[in-house]
Amino acid sequence: MNQDTVSDGSADSNATSVRFADVLEAADRIRSFIHRTPVLTCAAISDRVGCNVFFKCENFQKSGAFKFRGAVNSVAQLSEADLASGVVTHSSGNHAGALALAARQFGAKAHIVMPSNSSEIKKSAVREYGGLITECEPTLASRISEAARIRGETGAVLIPPFDHPHVIAGQGTAALELIEQVPELDMIVSPIGGGGLMSGTCLAARALKPGLRIVGAEPVGADDAFQSKKAGKFIPQLAPDTVADGLRTSLGQLTWPFIRDEVDEILLADDLATISAMKFFWERTKVMIEPSCAVPIAAIINHFSKSIHNDSSRKFPQNIGIIISGGNVDLQALPWLKER
Amino acid sequence: MNQDTVSDGSADSNATSVRFADVLEAADRIRSFIHRTPVLTCAAISDRVGCNVFFKCENFQKSGAFKFRGAVNSVAQLSEADLASGVVTHSSGNHAGALALAARQFGAKAHIVMPSNSSEIKKSAVREYGGLITECEPTLASRISEAARIRGETGAVLIPPFDHPHVIAGQGTAALELIEQVPELDMIVSPIGGGGLMSGTCLAARALKPGLRIVGAEPVGADDAFQSKKAGKFIPQLAPDTVADGLRTSLGQLTWPFIRDEVDEILLADDLATISAMKFFWERTKVMIEPSCAVPIAAIINHFSKSIHNDSSRKFPQNIGIIISGGNVDLQALPWLKER
Repeated sequence: MNQDTVSDGSADSNATSVRFADVLEAADRIRSFIHRTPVLTCAAISDRVGCNVFFKCENFQKSGAFKFRGAVNSVAQLSEADLASGVVTHSSGNHAGALALAARQFGAKAHIVMPSNSSEIKKSAVREYGGLITECEPTLASRISEAARIRGETGAVLIPPFDHPHVIAGQGTAALELIEQVPELDMIVSPIGGGGLMSGTCLAARALKPGLRIVGAEPVGADDAFQSKKAGKFIPQLAPDTVADGLRTSLGQLTWPFIRDEVDEILLADDLATISAMKFFWERTKVMIEPSCAVPIAAIINHFSKSIHNDSSRKFPQNIGIIISGGNVDLQALPWLKER
Repeated sequence: MNQDTVSDGSADSNATSVRFADVLEAADRIRSFIHRTPVLTCAAISDRVGCNVFFKCENFQKSGAFKFRGAVNSVAQLSEADLASGVVTHSSGNHAGALALAARQFGAKAHIVMPSNSSEIKKSAVREYGGLITECEPTLASRISEAARIRGETGAVLIPPFDHPHVIAGQGTAALELIEQVPELDMIVSPIGGGGLMSGTCLAARALKPGLRIVGAEPVGADDAFQSKKAGKFIPQLAPDTVADGLRTSLGQLTWPFIRDEVDEILLADDLATISAMKFFWERTKVMIEPSCAVPIAAIINHFSKSIHNDSSRKFPQNIGIIISGGNVDLQALPWLKER
C-alpha cells in the first residue's frame, strides 16, 4: 500500500494520541507475528441482508481473536529491560490469552489477573500459552489492585485490554487488511466492547476510504456506546446483561472520542437475535464464532433485511464488511442450549 | 493438469466400471458447480501427530459435504428426458441434501426417501434445497420399496449414494484436488462408509502418485471394510454402533474391490477418541466437522502420535492429507454433551 496516496483522515484530528500512521506502523511491526486472516462470504446471509456481506475472520487469528494484534503490537515496542520484567494485565477474556501468547513470542513473562469466575476454557488457554494466572475476586476493584500489586513486586508493564494507543493501533490493522482485501466496501461494522477494535477501525476506515459508512454494533444489554453517543457524553456501563461476554465493558478515555466523533451509527441486537444469528452462522458457514461476533450479524440482519428494502426513505448498503472478532467458545456451554 | 503426464494407475485394472479418466472427466464436468475447497492446517494437530497434516475441507463444499460432487456428476449426465422425470434416492444423510441441491441446479425434481427417524436438520436441508421428502419406516427394506414405488410412478432415475460409477468418479475429484493442492503428500486418508469417497480417492491417488500410501479410516463400531479386508471377502455391516452416522453403511459391489485391492491399510478409532478429536478440531481450528470426519483424525492421532515416533520398526509419514468429508452437525445434539 502506498502511504502517499492515503488521505489523512479526520480521525487523526481527535484529541487522542493514536493516528493512522500508528496503524500503518503497527501493520509493519506485527506482520511476521500474525495471520493475515481470510475474508469469507456466505450466500445465505448475503441473501437475507439483500447485499454482499464480507466477514473478516479474526476468529482464525492467533489466540483465536483480533486481540492478538494489539497485544503483539504492544509487547513488540517494549525495551529489553521491560521485557525482562514481564507484562501484566487483568482480563477474563480474549486479551488474557492474546497477551500471554504475545509475551511468549518475545520471551517475556505474562502475569494475567483473572477473576475467579473466569471460564475454564479461557484459563486453560492462558496456561497453554505460558501465562501466569493470579486469581482475584470477581470485581473490578480486586482486578485492579491485584494487577497493581504484581506491578509493584515485579516491575511488569501493564498492557491494558483496549485503552492504550499501541493496542488501538494494533487492532486497527484488522480493518486495514479488510479494506485492502475488499476495496468495494461501502460499510464497515465492528462490535463495541471497550472500543479498541472500533477505534482502530475508525482510524483505518477514515484514512483509507473517507466515504465509508462506519457502524458499531452493541448488545441491547450493554449499550453504553449507543447511550453515550445519544447523550453526547460518556456514560459508563454499570450493569451489563448480555450473552456477548466480550462486549460487557465500558468505553475508555481514549476510545470514547472515536465513538463520539467517527462512528456514523450504532446498531443494537438483543440476545435472542444474537444467539439465533450465531447458530445460523455456524450452520451455514461451518465456522465457529463467539457471541460477540454475532451481535453485528444480528444487527445488520435486523436493520437491512431484504424484506424492508422497499423502504425508499433509507439508504441501504451494497457491500458490508464485518469484523468477526473471535472464535473462542466454550463447547460445553453453547448459548442455544441454555434455558433462558 | 496435463492428462498426458498422468500414469494409468493399477486401480483402473479392477473389474469395475470406473476409471481414472472418469474422475478427470468428472472434474471438468462439475467444475462450475462445485467449490474448489481450501486445504487447512492446524499446528496443534500436526504437532500431536509429529508430521504435517493437511485437511481438505469438503465441509465447505456446497450442501456441506463431498457428496455434492458425486451427486452433481450424476445429475449432469442425465438426458433431458431423464431430467424431466426427476431423480430419486433413499438416504438419511448427506447424499439426500446433496442430490436435492444438484437436481435443483438442473431444474429436476428430487424425490428423497428418508427414514422417519432421520434428523430434523437433514430433513430441513433437503426441503430448503427443494427436495420432495417421502418418509418411510426406518428399515432398509422400506427405503428400497418406497424408492422403487416412486420410480414406478414417476419414472425418476435412481441415484444411489455410493455404488454407482458416476458417483464414485465425482467423489474422486476431492482427492484429485487435494493432490494438486499439496503435491508433497506421502499419505492420503479417507473415511470409509459405503466406500464411494474411498474408491474415488484410490482412483485419483494411484494414477497421480503411485507411491502414495492410501489409508482408510473406520469406526470400531462399523469396521466392515477392515473385517472384509482382513478376511479377503466382503462382509456386510450388520449392526453398526457408532457416533459417526455417515459411516454406518456396508460397502457396495463396486466399492469393495477398491478397498480390497487398492487401500494399503485401514485404521480404526473408537467413539471416545472420535468425539475427543472432533471437539479438539473445533476448538483449535474454529471449523466445524461432523463425527465421520473425526474418525480419520482420531485414527492418525492414535497410530502416528509423536510419542511413538521412536519406534524404529515402523515407517512414519511426513505429510498426511485427510479428506474432511462434511460439516453438517445438529448443534442441538453435540456428541460430547450426551450421556454415554
